Amino acid sequence: MDYIKPTQLVEDVAHTGAYKSTLSIKDILVKGVLSGAFLGFSTTLAYTAATESKLGIIGALVFPVGFVLILLLGLELVTGNFAMLPLARLKGLTSSKNIAYNFFWAFVGNLLGSILYGALFYISATKLGHISESEIIQKIITVAEGKTLLYKELGKDGMIIVITKAILCNWMVTLGAFMAFVSSSTIGKIAAMWLPVFLFFAQGFEHAVVNMFLIPTAMMMGADISFSDWWLWNQIPVTIGNFFGGFVFTGLALHLVYRKKNAHLEKVPTIHQSPLKDQAL
Amino acid sequence: MDYIKPTQLVEDVAHTGAYKSTLSIKDILVKGVLSGAFLGFSTTLAYTAATESKLGIIGALVFPVGFVLILLLGLELVTGNFAMLPLARLKGLTSSKNIAYNFFWAFVGNLLGSILYGALFYISATKLGHISESEIIQKIITVAEGKTLLYKELGKDGMIIVITKAILCNWMVTLGAFMAFVSSSTIGKIAAMWLPVFLFFAQGFEHAVVNMFLIPTAMMMGADISFSDWWLWNQIPVTIGNFFGGFVFTGLALHLVYRKKNAHLEKVPTIHQSPLKDQAL
Amino acid sequence: MDYIKPTQLVEDVAHTGAYKSTLSIKDILVKGVLSGAFLGFSTTLAYTAATESKLGIIGALVFPVGFVLILLLGLELVTGNFAMLPLARLKGLTSSKNIAYNFFWAFVGNLLGSILYGALFYISATKLGHISESEIIQKIITVAEGKTLLYKELGKDGMIIVITKAILCNWMVTLGAFMAFVSSSTIGKIAAMWLPVFLFFAQGFEHAVVNMFLIPTAMMMGADISFSDWWLWNQIPVTIGNFFGGFVFTGLALHLVYRKKNAHLEKVPTIHQSPLKDQAL
Amino acid sequence: MDYIKPTQLVEDVAHTGAYKSTLSIKDILVKGVLSGAFLGFSTTLAYTAATESKLGIIGALVFPVGFVLILLLGLELVTGNFAMLPLARLKGLTSSKNIAYNFFWAFVGNLLGSILYGALFYISATKLGHISESEIIQKIITVAEGKTLLYKELGKDGMIIVITKAILCNWMVTLGAFMAFVSSSTIGKIAAMWLPVFLFFAQGFEHAVVNMFLIPTAMMMGADISFSDWWLWNQIPVTIGNFFGGFVFTGLALHLVYRKKNAHLEKVPTIHQSPLKDQAL
Amino acid sequence: MDYIKPTQLVEDVAHTGAYKSTLSIKDILVKGVLSGAFLGFSTTLAYTAATESKLGIIGALVFPVGFVLILLLGLELVTGNFAMLPLARLKGLTSSKNIAYNFFWAFVGNLLGSILYGALFYISATKLGHISESEIIQKIITVAEGKTLLYKELGKDGMIIVITKAILCNWMVTLGAFMAFVSSSTIGKIAAMWLPVFLFFAQGFEHAVVNMFLIPTAMMMGADISFSDWWLWNQIPVTIGNFFGGFVFTGLALHLVYRKKNAHLEKVPTIHQSPLKDQAL
Repeated sequence: MDYIKPTQLVEDVAHTGAYKSTLSIKDILVKGVLSGAFLGFSTTLAYTAATESKLGIIGALVFPVGFVLILLLGLELVTGNFAMLPLARLKGLTSSKNIAYNFFWAFVGNLLGSILYGALFYISATKLGHISESEIIQKIITVAEGKTLLYKELGKDGMIIVITKAILCNWMVTLGAFMAFVSSSTIGKIAAMWLPVFLFFAQGFEHAVVNMFLIPTAMMMGADISFSDWWLWNQIPVTIGNFFGGFVFTGLALHLVYRKKNAHLEKVPTIHQSPLKDQAL
Repeated sequence: MDYIKPTQLVEDVAHTGAYKSTLSIKDILVKGVLSGAFLGFSTTLAYTAATESKLGIIGALVFPVGFVLILLLGLELVTGNFAMLPLARLKGLTSSKNIAYNFFWAFVGNLLGSILYGALFYISATKLGHISESEIIQKIITVAEGKTLLYKELGKDGMIIVITKAILCNWMVTLGAFMAFVSSSTIGKIAAMWLPVFLFFAQGFEHAVVNMFLIPTAMMMGADISFSDWWLWNQIPVTIGNFFGGFVFTGLALHLVYRKKNAHLEKVPTIHQSPLKDQAL
Repeated sequence: MDYIKPTQLVEDVAHTGAYKSTLSIKDILVKGVLSGAFLGFSTTLAYTAATESKLGIIGALVFPVGFVLILLLGLELVTGNFAMLPLARLKGLTSSKNIAYNFFWAFVGNLLGSILYGALFYISATKLGHISESEIIQKIITVAEGKTLLYKELGKDGMIIVITKAILCNWMVTLGAFMAFVSSSTIGKIAAMWLPVFLFFAQGFEHAVVNMFLIPTAMMMGADISFSDWWLWNQIPVTIGNFFGGFVFTGLALHLVYRKKNAHLEKVPTIHQSPLKDQAL
Repeated sequence: MDYIKPTQLVEDVAHTGAYKSTLSIKDILVKGVLSGAFLGFSTTLAYTAATESKLGIIGALVFPVGFVLILLLGLELVTGNFAMLPLARLKGLTSSKNIAYNFFWAFVGNLLGSILYGALFYISATKLGHISESEIIQKIITVAEGKTLLYKELGKDGMIIVITKAILCNWMVTLGAFMAFVSSSTIGKIAAMWLPVFLFFAQGFEHAVVNMFLIPTAMMMGADISFSDWWLWNQIPVTIGNFFGGFVFTGLALHLVYRKKNAHLEKVPTIHQSPLKDQAL
Repeated sequence: MDYIKPTQLVEDVAHTGAYKSTLSIKDILVKGVLSGAFLGFSTTLAYTAATESKLGIIGALVFPVGFVLILLLGLELVTGNFAMLPLARLKGLTSSKNIAYNFFWAFVGNLLGSILYGALFYISATKLGHISESEIIQKIITVAEGKTLLYKELGKDGMIIVITKAILCNWMVTLGAFMAFVSSSTIGKIAAMWLPVFLFFAQGFEHAVVNMFLIPTAMMMGADISFSDWWLWNQIPVTIGNFFGGFVFTGLALHLVYRKKNAHLEKVPTIHQSPLKDQAL
């Protein structure tokens, strides 16, 4: 049936990672913009649910919607890629250069998509600036300030905390990305992916792409956050922590235990028309 | 198993879009009437849930019922078609004229179905006018006024806001329509479609077909909305925004990244007995 | 996979409808008794849920339990048959006489089953008359009076309202019956059937078989409803409205748009050992 | 796909019933002990959920957990067998003697398992007698007293009421057991079984095996119930009502309408190595 | 379809147990670390849900997330192994020495993973010690003290209680591990596994691996628990109870009733490249 065993799952993820590393800039950018926007949509959905119900857990329960859309449509999410592409590298299926290339453009795409959605949502939520107070606006500002100013205040300790929360976050997010491969059935993929993403969001860990939407949108809405607050105290350390958590605890760990013993080393693909072409998910 | 990969999904959607563009007027009208009514049923269900629980998110959670019925039965929903048919055109599978023809009759069908349900619901909810106050009546009137008078009040800014909310809405609705193709299993289709439709409704974005039921029904119930308020400040700008959002962010975006490289250009079908006949979904 | 496309679905429903019209009286009666009782079970479940949670929507969410059991076991529910059998007739697969025969005995069976459950539930809920007040007893009496006396009070307008609510109801119930055919997988059938039945119950529309349990049970429990109140102001008009809604908006509408163009007209079956025998669902 | 049509379902249940009637005493006892304990686990889960949430319906919603485990693992539950084995007898697949043999040992096994869990739960909930008051202890005592003393107080009427509630209960429980055969897919089985079991528990009907845990555990915890109260006013009449409800309304009723016309009468199996061996479910 | 009958299920579990007993130390350790961490993630998720909603049952409902990830990825959880490996031994598929070897390293891995997550979570929840009071910190400390000091206080009785609660716990957890084999479909596995794990957590039974995270983390956070409190009054007796409950009530019980009569005794595998290699789940 549709369940995919772990050894095969790790193999499939690695090949998809290799394939992703060969996409054209245009493909990565468009797919990255959609992913960034979808996580933005999900974040405002989650905050709507949380503020209405006064229960953060309800917000977390619905947050995975956007993540599931990204994976089902085979789009580019830089945080998910943090485990998938290095895994392909560990298996000799791609080069470090190809990985860096994907990371860069996926990051840019995610950033553009997040800001695009942020701008459209700003228009909708503030009625083009006519409204400056509402539950959802307040929520976005409060959360964004907590994700920047709080760490800044604690100095070096704040840096350790934000990186730790980013590690914990992407351990789960990359697991969610891997879970998309645990079934060849749509309902199985959705259910399995939902779990770790719900888990990370419920506990307020730090996710680079969510923050690409959250912090600049809060800034548009009047949060007291400077550009350097955003990048120095959140975006950069979170990206580093996300990479470390995803690579070490998911990509590397599963590679260590699910290596196919006699797997022949395949060549590193360098062009788009690879035989991997259709393995977007 | 039942999961359909993105490249195939985009192909399937395009062929269904092409097929839809060849339906007879009668077929589009009947299918459009059912779709309009089903979204009306869903809207009153959602408002019943929301007013009883005092939680809009619960209303949004159940709203997709009608959308799912529409897609499972292969009916005509003009907003979903805003992404599917242009995609068929981008692939050279239909003509712009055929698209305009479908859009026109699907719009008319949706409008008739929405008003039909609106009239029947009016009889039921107001007890043929014997009751003028109830939670659900109040909810419908309040929402409908917020969807028209509020934008009118803000003038040009209101126009920007309503179009933005319509773009955001149909980005998700068309994604919902595409998600119906992500699985060949019924449960997979239902689960996948549910997500983006739940997402848009929870956040109060603007959907042309929902409003075809909501605003005229509110008018019957005594809302202070004129015919021109309805069309100038909601129906027309929302339809434009819905088209833009669905076409650009779903149809075009996915076309750009999931083009089959060597796909042979098929001829534009012009009659009903096309080989596409059975691809209603 | 398990999803059944609309054209095939309509074909399958029609053949099942034809098969149902050839069942023996004993089969229809036993299957009808079970269906009537199952809807009774569901109604008291729904009212238990609603009174405990103070939320009608929760009651509606669990109501479809009995409906699902009926469809999965291929039993006879006269309201569902109101769309399925006429569809078979439209396709020339059965005769009007056979339909009337099924409607009559399914109605009788449903009525007997509803009253059987009503009597057993009366013993359980009132402790054989030792208790006359409880939340569930009060709920049943209040609802039943609202479904009869209220319409009577409004005279001719009441008649229009009750028929309208019956039309809206069975539009959805018959859609639920059709949804049982949208998948060849049990989970797909359950999920798809659940939706429209949940939708109708949440909004308090009028369903003939539910009322066959509700009103006489309320009468046993002491509701101020006469036999003629039950039949003149509810059972008869609701049955008429249910037939109209199910036949026109589901059976006929879907027949119009999903006719197989070259389908050969099959003969009307008149005996039980038809080749359709096993198509109970 | 995985949906099993009613005629086949009834055939499968009958063969499983016949197989069950040939199990060794050891097999029935071990399987019966597990079933008894699993329903005990479920009952305390349900009461935990109900007391925490103050909503009995939430307790009922989670109660089927244990029932599902029993059916998925093909264990012996005497109440479920009340419909399955007589059905096998009606089809000439087993003898009345074999049925009585299974009923006896399954009853004993269920009783032992229920009391085993009851004793372990007593240790856990009362901290080996150090605690005598808590929400869950109070709940168990109150419910158990309501299930015995209340009927005793009403005398002959109490006997009619308890038997009626037992009939209603096992009508649904046996339907749940049959629903385990409505799909060859695990998720389909789980979903279908859940429904009728949830339905009976929500309404407080009387189930012999649940009571085998509930009443003696309440007695250990200090409920004012004598051994004869337990057996005369609950265990015996409930067992009788459960048998009647399960046999007549599920086993017999479905046999009447889903008899295979030309089915050849198979011989009654009398030993364990029957070809039915693997049809535990 | 995907449902696996009990006889085959027991066979599959036994072979997986045999395979697990041949894993290298490195594989067991890495897999054990991931499992320990995943249960830690789940525990803090559950406590977040429970403290926000004030309902322990909601926490229990989401707790199985981590357990499902462990089983879907074929990782090593010593408590689950307590039933699976002895079952393999009963069938002569492995040796007691191999089992002890697996138990030892899986225990160590689970402990290391639990403490790793505990340390990272400590940094996140206490902001590196800057915060010492919050709902989640308080919850962890209270629960951990209840799981150690309370038993200590009751002396010998406390020892009986903690072992009883550990037996009840792992009866269900091992059943959850077995349920992962009841389907070859991902959604079937997830649903079936969820049930018994939800059941045990809701009732506060004692699970060795959860406690490996909970107690040392509470100690870091300032709970008044000594190292010997942790091990003497919880970790050691709970491990013993977990072993007994899992082995006797799940492994042995199901072995007794689902032995394949003529199964040929296979040799005990002693190296890693066994033909069982890919049966991680």
